[in-house]
Amino acid sequence: MSALEVQKARAASVFNRENLESILRGRFFYAPAFDIYGGVSGLYDYGPPGCAFQANVIDTWRKHFILEEDMLEVDCTMLTPYEVLKTSGHVDKFSDWMCRDLKTGEIFRADHLVEEVLEARLKGDKEARGIAHDPNEEEDSDKKKRKKKVKQIKAIKLEDEVVKEYETVLAKIDGYSGEELGELMVKYTINNPATDGPLEPPMAFNLMFETAIGPSGQLRGFLRPETAQGQFLNFNKLLEFNNSKTPFASASIGKSFRNEISPRAGLLRVREFLMAEIEHFVDPLDKSHPKFADVKDITLSFLPRGVQEAGSTEPITETIGKAVESKMIDNETLGYFISRIYQFLIKIGVDKTKLRFRQHMGNEMAHYATDCWDGELLTSYGWIECVGCADRSAFDLTVHSNKTKEKMVVREKLETPIEVTKYEIDLTKKLFGPKFRKDAPLVEKFLLDLSQTELEAKANELKTNGKVVFQINGLEGDVELDNKFINIEKRTKVEHVREYVPNVIEPSFGIGRIIYAVFEHSFWNRPEDTARGVLSFPPLVAPSKVLLVPLSNNKELQPVTKKVSDILRKAQIPFKVDDSGVSIGKRYSRNDELGTPFGVTIDFDSVKDDSVTLRERDSTQQVRGSVEDVIKAIKDITYNGVTWEEGTKNLEVFTSSQESK
Amino acid sequence: MSALEVQKARAASVFNRENLESILRGRFFYAPAFDIYGGVSGLYDYGPPGCAFQANVIDTWRKHFILEEDMLEVDCTMLTPYEVLKTSGHVDKFSDWMCRDLKTGEIFRADHLVEEVLEARLKGDKEARGIAHDPNEEEDSDKKKRKKKVKQIKAIKLEDEVVKEYETVLAKIDGYSGEELGELMVKYTINNPATDGPLEPPMAFNLMFETAIGPSGQLRGFLRPETAQGQFLNFNKLLEFNNSKTPFASASIGKSFRNEISPRAGLLRVREFLMAEIEHFVDPLDKSHPKFADVKDITLSFLPRGVQEAGSTEPITETIGKAVESKMIDNETLGYFISRIYQFLIKIGVDKTKLRFRQHMGNEMAHYATDCWDGELLTSYGWIECVGCADRSAFDLTVHSNKTKEKMVVREKLETPIEVTKYEIDLTKKLFGPKFRKDAPLVEKFLLDLSQTELEAKANELKTNGKVVFQINGLEGDVELDNKFINIEKRTKVEHVREYVPNVIEPSFGIGRIIYAVFEHSFWNRPEDTARGVLSFPPLVAPSKVLLVPLSNNKELQPVTKKVSDILRKAQIPFKVDDSGVSIGKRYSRNDELGTPFGVTIDFDSVKDDSVTLRERDSTQQVRGSVEDVIKAIKDITYNGVTWEEGTKNLEVFTSSQESK
Repeated sequence: MSALEVQKARAASVFNRENLESILRGRFFYAPAFDIYGGVSGLYDYGPPGCAFQANVIDTWRKHFILEEDMLEVDCTMLTPYEVLKTSGHVDKFSDWMCRDLKTGEIFRADHLVEEVLEARLKGDKEARGIAHDPNEEEDSDKKKRKKKVKQIKAIKLEDEVVKEYETVLAKIDGYSGEELGELMVKYTINNPATDGPLEPPMAFNLMFETAIGPSGQLRGFLRPETAQGQFLNFNKLLEFNNSKTPFASASIGKSFRNEISPRAGLLRVREFLMAEIEHFVDPLDKSHPKFADVKDITLSFLPRGVQEAGSTEPITETIGKAVESKMIDNETLGYFISRIYQFLIKIGVDKTKLRFRQHMGNEMAHYATDCWDGELLTSYGWIECVGCADRSAFDLTVHSNKTKEKMVVREKLETPIEVTKYEIDLTKKLFGPKFRKDAPLVEKFLLDLSQTELEAKANELKTNGKVVFQINGLEGDVELDNKFINIEKRTKVEHVREYVPNVIEPSFGIGRIIYAVFEHSFWNRPEDTARGVLSFPPLVAPSKVLLVPLSNNKELQPVTKKVSDILRKAQIPFKVDDSGVSIGKRYSRNDELGTPFGVTIDFDSVKDDSVTLRERDSTQQVRGSVEDVIKAIKDITYNGVTWEEGTKNLEVFTSSQESK
Repeated sequence: MSALEVQKARAASVFNRENLESILRGRFFYAPAFDIYGGVSGLYDYGPPGCAFQANVIDTWRKHFILEEDMLEVDCTMLTPYEVLKTSGHVDKFSDWMCRDLKTGEIFRADHLVEEVLEARLKGDKEARGIAHDPNEEEDSDKKKRKKKVKQIKAIKLEDEVVKEYETVLAKIDGYSGEELGELMVKYTINNPATDGPLEPPMAFNLMFETAIGPSGQLRGFLRPETAQGQFLNFNKLLEFNNSKTPFASASIGKSFRNEISPRAGLLRVREFLMAEIEHFVDPLDKSHPKFADVKDITLSFLPRGVQEAGSTEPITETIGKAVESKMIDNETLGYFISRIYQFLIKIGVDKTKLRFRQHMGNEMAHYATDCWDGELLTSYGWIECVGCADRSAFDLTVHSNKTKEKMVVREKLETPIEVTKYEIDLTKKLFGPKFRKDAPLVEKFLLDLSQTELEAKANELKTNGKVVFQINGLEGDVELDNKFINIEKRTKVEHVREYVPNVIEPSFGIGRIIYAVFEHSFWNRPEDTARGVLSFPPLVAPSKVLLVPLSNNKELQPVTKKVSDILRKAQIPFKVDDSGVSIGKRYSRNDELGTPFGVTIDFDSVKDDSVTLRERDSTQQVRGSVEDVIKAIKDITYNGVTWEEGTKNLEVFTSSQESK
């Protein structure tokens, strides 16, 4: 098969999730954790090929981002004390909405329930109107696996207007508050789908796993819901490590945890997952990026806020340069990272026609964020958020700094000093002790914390009345001070240093979701035999690179097999030997399921002239050459970005009928 | 300096832990987690150099073990349901002994308290006898950091016999039960060292962090205390993945958690830590290892059980071959892994004179283990267990299999079938229903589960009395059955398949502890200036490999700097550029503290002839050559195991006085 034929065959292959899953589980890419104990929903283990694939994705990520951009990698603890996550807002706000059925004890996730019920009604409407099912929509047999609440579709026709309303709600489903979800449930009479019994209104359920640290059990802690907080807390140390230069980025790869209400959709919604996060600290007044020019011509598929608010899902195709220029994307640094995310995803095997960047809607975005785009990948479960890219502004550093009184700022020497005019307050401290006694520090702190606006008002009050009056929290009655105690003046000073809290641009990757999407995007069936599945991973991330296949068990072949093994091991190219008795064709097709890109066959000619056959997984093309040349080709194609055509141009084309055996 | 001079200077350097720690924290190798919130004891974050060092150690581990030995890597969840850890024994037995002071509320770890009090008394005794302090013992200033309970050493002379008794107790301190510790505390009047108040007797404190999984809060779970259980639970899938062949090994790298009673000693005793564990599944009747011959001549330092029981710490030096032959080490596979552990530790920078393998004493070892050896590293905190290497027998697979009724066995086709004679029981099932009704299945199961010994006894009973009588749990009264219901016979059969539960050899690495020990083993001070610390990491694991140093900020030097940067980046050799204004000597010595093995200086000659200077960290020797040749030397020395002498033999020796600037 030529490369073009491969492309056509892949495009023509009808995706079947059950086939893919049976391969992924059968070949132990992953499996439900604690399987022999009946499993725990939302927890999965990676077996050898899944684990190797994940390690290769992480290795690629580390090189693509950390090494290429000189980022500072840190490894922070997962156990996190209560106070940190209280400050960050997670204790109060990191929750989903759940509804209880008080009769049956069942618990539903409110947004998922509304989504499923409305989708089911729309399906029923289509059925009633006699419109055929979209073949890409999931099959009935999948429903059980997704633990769908809605078991049956009833063919009931809806009013045209209702259909439109449902569609609008579904397009905005990620953005509703608990109250709004409750209103939708009332408006559309959404009950327990199994019993039609009533549900309690949505309640917030915090998604963090809680635990106690230490033997006394008194220090409350959580498992981190993201790696970001550890990076923020180390900001000062990182800035110092970077010789106080900005902008710079930290990065972290590690597990995070979310106690999902009802996990579903396999690897896509799990309770323990691998994240890779970058925190890029940047001057809020200058979010340009020095390497933006390198990426500005990359064309991407965008789904901006406005399009979604109009209830549409039709993306806009645009260069990243134009998207930033038109202010659709807030700034260059955000745009730069969106492009780098795109390049990374393509490198590890994402199908670029199944990738879009969706902007968060106003009500969906955290209140502190300036702008936020999700890299979404199309799978058989729909469009899935796999990478977030947010401008978190100065929120996190500010709240942690306020809470701990630890300054977290960048100090920048100004090339030309600037004049700054502002109100200042002077306290005659020796008078405060006698007047306020033990409360003196409280009064002083209150005065020194006054804002510019307050100072201006008080300066006028002092000028007019010769005294000022305050109410101070924690002190009874009014506090009266005259100008013997305080002096408020507008002064102009020359400043040589600018001090600012940097803003944070945060690309955040859900590695497990990306991996699952790549599995789907890489999967196809051979046109000549649809039972033969292939996982067309890029060689760079394939779990194993080479399958070594001695033609038979004959002892004569063993020295060459050992020689090739030794060279591959020395070159640190992961490989497997398959010297089982089955046919060559069968051994290859078994490895197509593992995504192994190359096969090397050792036959009796190999013993004579040291030549071996090299087979490419997708095209099943074969070439022949010396052991050294074949391994060089494998290495160049896998690690040095060389194409198959280029890498094998000095090798002879080899024809055999083994493939079909 | 020559290599020999370096060796001498390192040996002569007096180790000072405070100096090392100030570098490790100052250069952000690691720092207490949540530092700005006051920290949480036992939790540490790794900064950029620590994180890179850790990643390199893990990468080396993966290549040394997984790739080299074709192990099956898995990545299992940390969240683990109660039932799994109940079965494995962790819920009941994974605990330390703690003593409470009911008056002050303080909690002490019993074995540590006994150890510290007795050590303090021995010190006091030495003082009273006028014996000088060992300079290698920790300094007073360190005590606070270790959170020592014993604040003051009192110079009180002890009886000679008491000294001996204390020393014997200390040599066996790891092996005492809670009851025994309680007895020691009474015998030696060990109270709260601060108040001399009485303590409660030792109580078991379970070291696992507990949490609840899911929104109902009803599924109890823990954070895993080791990665091993996940590997055991996946045994059947792994065996199938390995085409049912044995022996084979699985491996896993990931965080585990222990809720230490009172963490101390920095990175050595923490609550969240990175582990790398191997589970090698082997035939219990054949624990030979095919590659044992490759390692048998390696000489190691052993501290076997007998030596310790005699109260001694004098190690035995022996080849691993002789250690296995003499049965000091139980079997070849265990011996093979001990050697491989040794090779790995040396590769990443452990000082081999500070490594010993200590055998667990009888009372210290888990009841199911056949043999267990700890790889211990000598640090300023004493000998520290960093790697365990245990033969866990068939314990884990057996208990999980019994609990879940999932068979976990290897089936081996016998080359020559064997005859097996055993008792078998036949049930006349159609009679059981009418007689026992709903209890029939219970009775049948009871009968089919009878052991060979029980069957033999019942066969005789049946023969003698024509009937048998049973008491069955869950049924009231006796159950009487005659030979119409059952038949028990001794039969001889030919078996073609042997079925067995494999034994497990488990090398288990505490990566954080190993890393800290390498930090200590690598640290020394330049003899000419003891303020200049050096971390002599092997280039393979050094956080960054090259420091690029343009002689000055002159723009002329920038193109060469960029060229060298580009080549290094393309070759994926981690490097840093230091173009700060300070002197070359200062820039180098800053990087000696980071353990960067190579410096490349770019000067005005570089612009003319494309040559650069290469500097070696330990010897400060410099050589000069073309950019290409210098980078080739760096690559060969770092990744291909080439020595400095060999790697630079074609480069010219270069002399300059920059170093001392």
